[in-house]
Amino acid sequence: MNDTIKSNEIFQKALTDLNLIRQNNPVVHNLTNLVVMQTTANMLLAIGASPIMAHAHEELADILSIANSLVINMGTLDSAWVTACDIAQQTAHEKKVPIIFDPVGAGASQFRTHTAKKILQRGVSILRGNASEIMTLVDDYIKTKGVDSRHKTEDAISAAKSLSKKYQCTVVISGETDIIIKEDNEAFIHFGTPMFTKVTGMGCSATAIIGAFAAINPDPFLAATNAVAIFTIAGEMAAANANGPASFYNNLIDTLYSL
Amino acid sequence: MNDTIKSNEIFQKALTDLNLIRQNNPVVHNLTNLVVMQTTANMLLAIGASPIMAHAHEELADILSIANSLVINMGTLDSAWVTACDIAQQTAHEKKVPIIFDPVGAGASQFRTHTAKKILQRGVSILRGNASEIMTLVDDYIKTKGVDSRHKTEDAISAAKSLSKKYQCTVVISGETDIIIKEDNEAFIHFGTPMFTKVTGMGCSATAIIGAFAAINPDPFLAATNAVAIFTIAGEMAAANANGPASFYNNLIDTLYSL
Amino acid sequence: MNDTIKSNEIFQKALTDLNLIRQNNPVVHNLTNLVVMQTTANMLLAIGASPIMAHAHEELADILSIANSLVINMGTLDSAWVTACDIAQQTAHEKKVPIIFDPVGAGASQFRTHTAKKILQRGVSILRGNASEIMTLVDDYIKTKGVDSRHKTEDAISAAKSLSKKYQCTVVISGETDIIIKEDNEAFIHFGTPMFTKVTGMGCSATAIIGAFAAINPDPFLAATNAVAIFTIAGEMAAANANGPASFYNNLIDTLYSL
Repeated sequence: MNDTIKSNEIFQKALTDLNLIRQNNPVVHNLTNLVVMQTTANMLLAIGASPIMAHAHEELADILSIANSLVINMGTLDSAWVTACDIAQQTAHEKKVPIIFDPVGAGASQFRTHTAKKILQRGVSILRGNASEIMTLVDDYIKTKGVDSRHKTEDAISAAKSLSKKYQCTVVISGETDIIIKEDNEAFIHFGTPMFTKVTGMGCSATAIIGAFAAINPDPFLAATNAVAIFTIAGEMAAANANGPASFYNNLIDTLYSL
Repeated sequence: MNDTIKSNEIFQKALTDLNLIRQNNPVVHNLTNLVVMQTTANMLLAIGASPIMAHAHEELADILSIANSLVINMGTLDSAWVTACDIAQQTAHEKKVPIIFDPVGAGASQFRTHTAKKILQRGVSILRGNASEIMTLVDDYIKTKGVDSRHKTEDAISAAKSLSKKYQCTVVISGETDIIIKEDNEAFIHFGTPMFTKVTGMGCSATAIIGAFAAINPDPFLAATNAVAIFTIAGEMAAANANGPASFYNNLIDTLYSL
Repeated sequence: MNDTIKSNEIFQKALTDLNLIRQNNPVVHNLTNLVVMQTTANMLLAIGASPIMAHAHEELADILSIANSLVINMGTLDSAWVTACDIAQQTAHEKKVPIIFDPVGAGASQFRTHTAKKILQRGVSILRGNASEIMTLVDDYIKTKGVDSRHKTEDAISAAKSLSKKYQCTVVISGETDIIIKEDNEAFIHFGTPMFTKVTGMGCSATAIIGAFAAINPDPFLAATNAVAIFTIAGEMAAANANGPASFYNNLIDTLYSL
């Protein structure tokens, strides 16, 4: 790790939360997608959290009784998953378990967009997606004509603020710069690497790691900011010694473990 | 990479297609099996394609509207998967999306063999399997008495030609030598490594990568040939520096990324 | 490998079984969980077994006709999985296929505990879990007041003996020391590494590998002991050169392949 990162203020605060995770091993319940289950479980274990993956309608209430946060990821949703999500989300609310939501592929089908909006309406603590997913979730969203990335970033921030106010949640926009929004508060994280886009489940892993931070930090805005800082710094370090996506992935897990 | 590979004519043609994939990032929709989802998504990302994994009946039509090819892999089929496959295949035909089919385990159960034949009857562009899977799909297939590998190869080629004519598709037989058949046309790819048999999902990854090539090359025979060349050359390079199946797997993804 | 391991008697016996696996490539059918499918398939391939993952009710009888053992892992159970398990277990009994059962998360929900007991009542050859899972399966289990690890180990052994007698099966308790129980027989394996707890699916992998050994060794107690010895020795060797959980995981597969 270079000195710039070491002395970075956000990184220092994030490390305090990371140490809390290592001490308390919070239980993160994942109602997640079939592609990333192994990846996100390993990411959570690497930072010291205790992942559970379970979806049976019969047991969601029991599982949520021992969970410190609930991560909902709709990447491979289907009708059974949607029912499981209904039950999990309602139970999490009853038990005051914070919910972190990843609307994977919102916009790619009406079914996804509709399901994502329903989940938001029922209430989540933190929403994380890429700019397109975030923008697609705003009901009356009108795209600006510009297609350059500066316009897209402004549009995404505006969409995130709108969603944050409407649904009373923190919104994380992942991208070259990660942006964390809570109503009119903003944080910008400039760490990261393009290698994140070459491995499946990296956005989903960011969401899962936010789940671990939200399990030990009661402030969703800070939890999300700290989680994103740790994940993107680890990513930047991992990419420095990678020959390609597979060695990047392995370095990332080893780095998260070593931080 | 050694000079023999560099100067290989098939490899040079295959690189042209690979560059097209990197420029156009075709969307490859995978209706695939639960064991290999992460693996095949990472293989597709490594070569520059955009994988989607989705199976909800409610969204298959929407997803196929943005897909450039459809990969069907029946490795962990069940009745819900079979219904999803019906919908996906019909929609792909309507939208002129090429279909690449991997009949994983055909012959291991009547359910698999029956399902695979039904999928072939509805029409696919490219069929890829190992010799046993290919041979089991010929209705009136009579095994020769010989069990040596030369006989098996001849039998598999004969089966592939029969399937290619009956179902009007390209057939790929994976093995020590990979064979691509379109009616009476044949191509033989002699690259590869036995290490492919020591990692789960390598046949499935070949099929997924054929899906990416078929998304940018309108000739299924050439798409399959180029895809198999790239995959097996990368495999041969990856095996050269591997200590075992895990380092081989990681090297393979990093090599596919670097080619 | 150091000389202490090389000359270890248990290791020498285990190697004999491992060589049988490499010669016979037994078919291990896994009715398993969605998180660990890829991992356990790769572990089985690394030691020379032939993994099958299949769960369709329509094909379980056909698949079990070609299987040499059945591994049941309830990590992501749901009602369809429970039905598949009913069918698979009954068919395995009819075809005299040994059953190895991993009650993942027993105790975390009533649904899991109930399902695990039902599976035990129908009969398994080998049960493998951690101390908590094993203890939770004893009907009239009364926890001792002590919470130190010595008490926990004694409690777990007592629970395992009770389960072994009641259900006529071998019981494996995974932990810092692995303990294999068959009625009043005990074996203790002292190899291993804490790194096993930092990667998802390592307990499940132990169970799958026991499945391969049970496929070639008719004595469940010896099969379980030999499998655990090979897996934990490989783990200890893999951890020696690991920078974190991902390199440990890769080293483990490569080591299992090379032993």
